[in-house]
Amino acid sequence: MAELVGNVLVGQSGGPTSVINASVAGIISEALNHECIEEIYGTLNGVLGILQEDLIDLASESQQQIRALKHSPGAALGTCRYKLKKQQDFERVLEVFKAHNIRYFFYIGGNDSQDTADKISKLAQQQGYELRVIGVPKTIDNDLPITDHTPGYASAVKYLATTVREIAADNEAMGQGDLVSIIEVMGRSAGWLAAGSALAKRRDHPHDPPHLILLPEVPFAQDKVLEDIRRTLKREKFCQIVVAEGLVDSDGNYLAADAATDSFGHAQLGGAGDALAEIIGQNIPGVKVRVAKPGLAQRCAAHAASKTDVDEAFLAGEAAVEAAIAGHTDKMVTLLRGDGDHYTTETGLAPLSDVANSVKKLPREWINEDGVSMNFQFLRYAQPLIQGEVTVPHDSGVPVFARLEKVRVDKILPGYDV
Amino acid sequence: MAELVGNVLVGQSGGPTSVINASVAGIISEALNHECIEEIYGTLNGVLGILQEDLIDLASESQQQIRALKHSPGAALGTCRYKLKKQQDFERVLEVFKAHNIRYFFYIGGNDSQDTADKISKLAQQQGYELRVIGVPKTIDNDLPITDHTPGYASAVKYLATTVREIAADNEAMGQGDLVSIIEVMGRSAGWLAAGSALAKRRDHPHDPPHLILLPEVPFAQDKVLEDIRRTLKREKFCQIVVAEGLVDSDGNYLAADAATDSFGHAQLGGAGDALAEIIGQNIPGVKVRVAKPGLAQRCAAHAASKTDVDEAFLAGEAAVEAAIAGHTDKMVTLLRGDGDHYTTETGLAPLSDVANSVKKLPREWINEDGVSMNFQFLRYAQPLIQGEVTVPHDSGVPVFARLEKVRVDKILPGYDV
Repeated sequence: MAELVGNVLVGQSGGPTSVINASVAGIISEALNHECIEEIYGTLNGVLGILQEDLIDLASESQQQIRALKHSPGAALGTCRYKLKKQQDFERVLEVFKAHNIRYFFYIGGNDSQDTADKISKLAQQQGYELRVIGVPKTIDNDLPITDHTPGYASAVKYLATTVREIAADNEAMGQGDLVSIIEVMGRSAGWLAAGSALAKRRDHPHDPPHLILLPEVPFAQDKVLEDIRRTLKREKFCQIVVAEGLVDSDGNYLAADAATDSFGHAQLGGAGDALAEIIGQNIPGVKVRVAKPGLAQRCAAHAASKTDVDEAFLAGEAAVEAAIAGHTDKMVTLLRGDGDHYTTETGLAPLSDVANSVKKLPREWINEDGVSMNFQFLRYAQPLIQGEVTVPHDSGVPVFARLEKVRVDKILPGYDV
Repeated sequence: MAELVGNVLVGQSGGPTSVINASVAGIISEALNHECIEEIYGTLNGVLGILQEDLIDLASESQQQIRALKHSPGAALGTCRYKLKKQQDFERVLEVFKAHNIRYFFYIGGNDSQDTADKISKLAQQQGYELRVIGVPKTIDNDLPITDHTPGYASAVKYLATTVREIAADNEAMGQGDLVSIIEVMGRSAGWLAAGSALAKRRDHPHDPPHLILLPEVPFAQDKVLEDIRRTLKREKFCQIVVAEGLVDSDGNYLAADAATDSFGHAQLGGAGDALAEIIGQNIPGVKVRVAKPGLAQRCAAHAASKTDVDEAFLAGEAAVEAAIAGHTDKMVTLLRGDGDHYTTETGLAPLSDVANSVKKLPREWINEDGVSMNFQFLRYAQPLIQGEVTVPHDSGVPVFARLEKVRVDKILPGYDV
């Protein structure tokens, strides 16, 4: 494989996670090891920054700030939900790449982003422009195929399991057999996050909270769920329920009434918790219902991140650069779990086209027959991912996160209307 | 002062906090130092446990578990919102105290609980039963008078400021000048918690998020707030708003439509965030609005507690015992701030009757003229309270909390119907 000399471009896309910046740190850290890489640029707000030629010089950032990326939530380069649609947009991307001699493009994102990376890669091949494109997986939804799991998922789950256990302690103190506590969690089409809340249970304590996990995979059976709640209230001091925002009824309609649509055509939800609270209040007289909705905190609670997750996100960034240097392109880095009893991870590669726009569902056989709890197969899968705590530096009592200088790269091309 | 020989009873009341158990640990720890104290009992679920003679032997708990109370949320003894109403209830309390030779009663709670403690103390005096009653302050609402601040408040604020800063990082990455992010926080009648979110701002960065803090003290002026939001969206990439659940309009009506009433006659709220989101969506076209509602997590996120708060809650417990041993009764422990530049705390005592059912308001002069931000006087007050982080032990990736054995004290009296 001939050495490809040129510049690196790193981008972040879609919803941030607690560890998406750790992947940027991994990419920069590894890129600095290779002499064929001349400049290390970042694009501001993903493909939007490419279209508008808003690039920054990442190599000029202080080492201190790059190190701080490992514990900083959000997306330090900015992100976007803009989807390249027109052929003209793709042509513009290539034009910008050529103008800045971008030969290595690392795009950190979920399904839609891997699809974008794939299309950019294929257009470059068509045009005979030598470009190596490697995707880095990212999403708290854990719904990317082929990879064992996705960086960002474990930290969201660790935060949720922590929150569930804490709220359970509060509920246990307050409850007199009349308290239903609902936590509405993210998860449009797959219940990976809601399922993860099962990690709040102690091993061999199936009756520990959360008492019911309502997944998008299991249509809401109102009478059965109400009966489950009544039974739990009799047995325990309270009933703690984790409900995914994407819970649907037997006709496939969202429990939440006001579904809208985001720019990728996905329904935007919210309100399953309140809808459920209303149903419970109407059907179980005298019960008190409390709803919490962590919302965005689920994907940015870096102070409660999983150390395993942070390390793997960094590793995935490093592996992307190594793969590109080795001549790979049009691939996404995957995480592979070792076969041994002791949890280990290695990285692999999968064709972007196999990843793009495909969704990994929560296996039905990991859900117990009761439909509201997870079995040992899920726990065996998820448990290792949330191991280890991080130490986030604090100043004046609050966490301190990275702030990049964002030194702009001079624009070369005429402007472009997005 | 003649030595009073007898048993201790500890109770917890009202909503739990992240540090209410630290006060229990402080009481037990100090009580063990005094030979005139024979047994150390706890009442399960506050006054309910007294009425029903549900007492446990705290001295028989392991030292390990008592130490773990310092980082355990919820209320390890159980709590209640039951309010003693009938004279018969008060008589029963005294009867139980006499039956178990309770001579020291420590009640950890907020305004209502201090009122209950006061009434029990006065009835004992009337009956000539020697009893020393000391209240220990507790509430995330920070609304108890006389004490500089209330254990529990600082940890809730630290968690909120952390969450605000993390969500701000996410918002900053996603926003394109069109994103409004709302965090609905607790606070029925006073904006102490909402105000505390101002600690997420860096010193001398008044434009840092949260951009608007909507307090119950400042009636919601829709046009002005919408104008503030529009201006922020122009200046920043996003507008982050912290709204107290008790936000009212100029007629004093809650912004949230469905106000109910709890057993103490307070309106139970929820929904100010969603109500605000609706107003914004209707009035600022094209804007995206996201709502998070940490709910109960605000008062139980022990993993993000303030070390200062934990230490002061423990100290308040110790001070309660010391005061009772010294002969004080019918008092609540207060926290007194030192005059020096360096933050220090000592404890004092205030008559229960001065505390009971009185409310400390957020000083109006600590709110900036814009009505949506806090000035340096508030920051100088609140900043020291959230200093220091705690280390909570984890097992299998989630925090581990105290689990008391709760060895029951034998019942002596006939049953009592609550």
